[in-house]
Amino acid sequence: LSHYHLDDTHDPALQSWVDSANRHPDFPIQNLPFGAFRVEGEQKLGVAIGDAIVDLVATRDAGLLDAVPECHAALDAAVLNELMALPLTARSRLRSALSRMLRTESPEGIEARHDGILVQQADADMVLPARISDYTDFYASIFHATNVGKMLRPDNPLLPNYTWIPIGYHGRASSIVPSGAPVRRPSGQTRDDAAAPPIFGPSRRLDYELEVGLFIGGGNPLGAPFPVAEAGAHLFGVCLLNDWSARDIQTWEYQPLGPFLAKNFATTISPWVVTMEALAPFRTAPLARRPGEPPPLAYLTDADDQEHGALGVSLEVSLSSAAMRSQGVVPQRISQSSLSDLFWTPAQIVTHHASGGCNLQPGDLLGTGTVSGEAKDARGCLLELTWRGTEPITLPSGEVRRFLEDGDEVIMRGWCERDGFRRIGLGECRGVILP
Amino acid sequence: LSHYHLDDTHDPALQSWVDSANRHPDFPIQNLPFGAFRVEGEQKLGVAIGDAIVDLVATRDAGLLDAVPECHAALDAAVLNELMALPLTARSRLRSALSRMLRTESPEGIEARHDGILVQQADADMVLPARISDYTDFYASIFHATNVGKMLRPDNPLLPNYTWIPIGYHGRASSIVPSGAPVRRPSGQTRDDAAAPPIFGPSRRLDYELEVGLFIGGGNPLGAPFPVAEAGAHLFGVCLLNDWSARDIQTWEYQPLGPFLAKNFATTISPWVVTMEALAPFRTAPLARRPGEPPPLAYLTDADDQEHGALGVSLEVSLSSAAMRSQGVVPQRISQSSLSDLFWTPAQIVTHHASGGCNLQPGDLLGTGTVSGEAKDARGCLLELTWRGTEPITLPSGEVRRFLEDGDEVIMRGWCERDGFRRIGLGECRGVILP
Repeated sequence: LSHYHLDDTHDPALQSWVDSANRHPDFPIQNLPFGAFRVEGEQKLGVAIGDAIVDLVATRDAGLLDAVPECHAALDAAVLNELMALPLTARSRLRSALSRMLRTESPEGIEARHDGILVQQADADMVLPARISDYTDFYASIFHATNVGKMLRPDNPLLPNYTWIPIGYHGRASSIVPSGAPVRRPSGQTRDDAAAPPIFGPSRRLDYELEVGLFIGGGNPLGAPFPVAEAGAHLFGVCLLNDWSARDIQTWEYQPLGPFLAKNFATTISPWVVTMEALAPFRTAPLARRPGEPPPLAYLTDADDQEHGALGVSLEVSLSSAAMRSQGVVPQRISQSSLSDLFWTPAQIVTHHASGGCNLQPGDLLGTGTVSGEAKDARGCLLELTWRGTEPITLPSGEVRRFLEDGDEVIMRGWCERDGFRRIGLGECRGVILP
Repeated sequence: LSHYHLDDTHDPALQSWVDSANRHPDFPIQNLPFGAFRVEGEQKLGVAIGDAIVDLVATRDAGLLDAVPECHAALDAAVLNELMALPLTARSRLRSALSRMLRTESPEGIEARHDGILVQQADADMVLPARISDYTDFYASIFHATNVGKMLRPDNPLLPNYTWIPIGYHGRASSIVPSGAPVRRPSGQTRDDAAAPPIFGPSRRLDYELEVGLFIGGGNPLGAPFPVAEAGAHLFGVCLLNDWSARDIQTWEYQPLGPFLAKNFATTISPWVVTMEALAPFRTAPLARRPGEPPPLAYLTDADDQEHGALGVSLEVSLSSAAMRSQGVVPQRISQSSLSDLFWTPAQIVTHHASGGCNLQPGDLLGTGTVSGEAKDARGCLLELTWRGTEPITLPSGEVRRFLEDGDEVIMRGWCERDGFRRIGLGECRGVILP
């Protein structure tokens, strides 16, 4: 029994009366991601459609959501938490109502197009979509874990627990910022020379990490775990996530309790949350376990999840230096990978998180960890791509990069494509480094 | 220049018209800790005085806080965050007004005692004092770090970074509960036998950790660290904190990103926040650095802090088993230690946390880490006290403990005593283990 099924909202033939949606790479009528935006000083909830945003309060007040009264109260909030907390059935009915209302020629669509419910994205500022009470970061790519392990422990790259436990740790919620917010290079303690004292100063090995964020939908009370077969009901949707990392600070501070200041100076997320319903056509088989890799323990095993619990999201990272921008050179793609290459599925990640009784709450954010694939150009951070700086990359401007320089902009994109379905996308996650 | 100075609110001769305060071990008129309580279905802010609570809204509405109009709005909230966000000068004026109002014979006191501003603690339920957006746990006791290190790495107990960096990591905010809330024994993956697969089941090595929690007062914006000399303005007050820990889960999961499910099933805090102003008489010199231990780096060095930046808080842990309670045996004290034995001061901890640009917010909670001293009976957790279970302790009931059993209640207490000053206390932090 899958929580997310295909229905008429996924029909690739659907067209919207919002013209830009029909040629938009990310936000056609088959997607309908949720977000929060500011316009004229007011913060509101919306749904992306092409180049526009459906203003959800205006839509409700125009009577266009009369079919889903159970969702009405949640639309008044400034962030998505209350909407995320609604039962999956209510969220699905809201998606259906929005889809019908945005279709060309549907009775609802003919009415809606005259009701002034759209805001142009160019006229709005996107903000964080939810009040993120807790943020957790996982480490679900075995390729990333193996690459990092090879640099630290060449003889023993993958720790014994990796193939048994979805490794994760708590992150900092307060420093999560929306795409576009500049990121200040952090200072911290580093120690390159074990014979000399550490020094305190700006990080010289600043990195990005390409991740996907999972937003929690229905929560669970403290002390009440849930079975993996029910994990789907606890997930609301996904965004892109850049887990900015200061590698020199991390190396010196992380023993024995994990990364801390190396990560908590900023985490950037894309503003549109693509729902699990929208992703239903792109569910796929998880990465096959290789010889020597054990099957998951019973509490992480579900037949449906093992069949198509992974998400087929293509991901890419582009880099643009200040010099490239001043020369008019477009950003350079430096890696591409797939979310389906994770060792652990979203259902396993969320189930494990709550398995000891930890209470997850609507709006909580779970990062997947760096999404790296097996190929060299599928490595999701500079640490791996340049192999700790020993194999620098060259930009179109002729500049060389081992780690990020001031003025560098990192741009992440994600999208889903499959024969027989309309492509949908996660939009962009951008951030530029300030000195 | 110290942020916290002595004034007439610390006068040991002060008596209150609330009689129970004058003989109360923790909450005399010299203390005045803040908290949030529920009575008749309503949640309100209050100040502990003896066996009673000053209802702050009722006090304001009776005109007894007219001297501090800048604090009035913050008193309407259900939690202390807005009050914590007020400037230190406003918070100090509020303390002075409360002190004057509660004094025997003062004009304000004579008026106040007839205004019905008290609620008996026995009639109220204490709740979490603040909305804790982010919770961070440090590792500031060198005795604890050394003991734990000896068990894991006998040849190299203390890692090289320990004496340079206040080691910390992000914790889980959602599972923080107030004193008295029962704690369910968590399940999780453990692996005692490296030749066999791990198993998933209830933890068999459940432990407490005696800590003190530091509540953040004034916050700092993202990307804007502050100097250690200003750290005092960023601290609001302290509470007791029990960082419940499942040692068997921790051992198997913690590499390489730190403890996760071993800690996030519950963290218990005492409900009354003792302010930094109340603690002013008990500031003392930090633990002296021993030969081979470097002085702190410049960003963590402040002359005032090095002179009296530590807090002289005495701490103790008592244990009561279900059998002891049924036999009418009082809880057995199993350890006692002092907060002044930490290697890092509160100012160093909070300054380091923000030093890379991380934004701290009013109401954020920072645990000190297990407060252990050098003596064997000053070890702040069972892992140390029983040396990983190899030296079990015997309870008055004849029962033996290596780790916590179902039905065990852990009771933490903290207090400050100094010649020439009235003793004040932090109250209690209790929790009983459920199966």
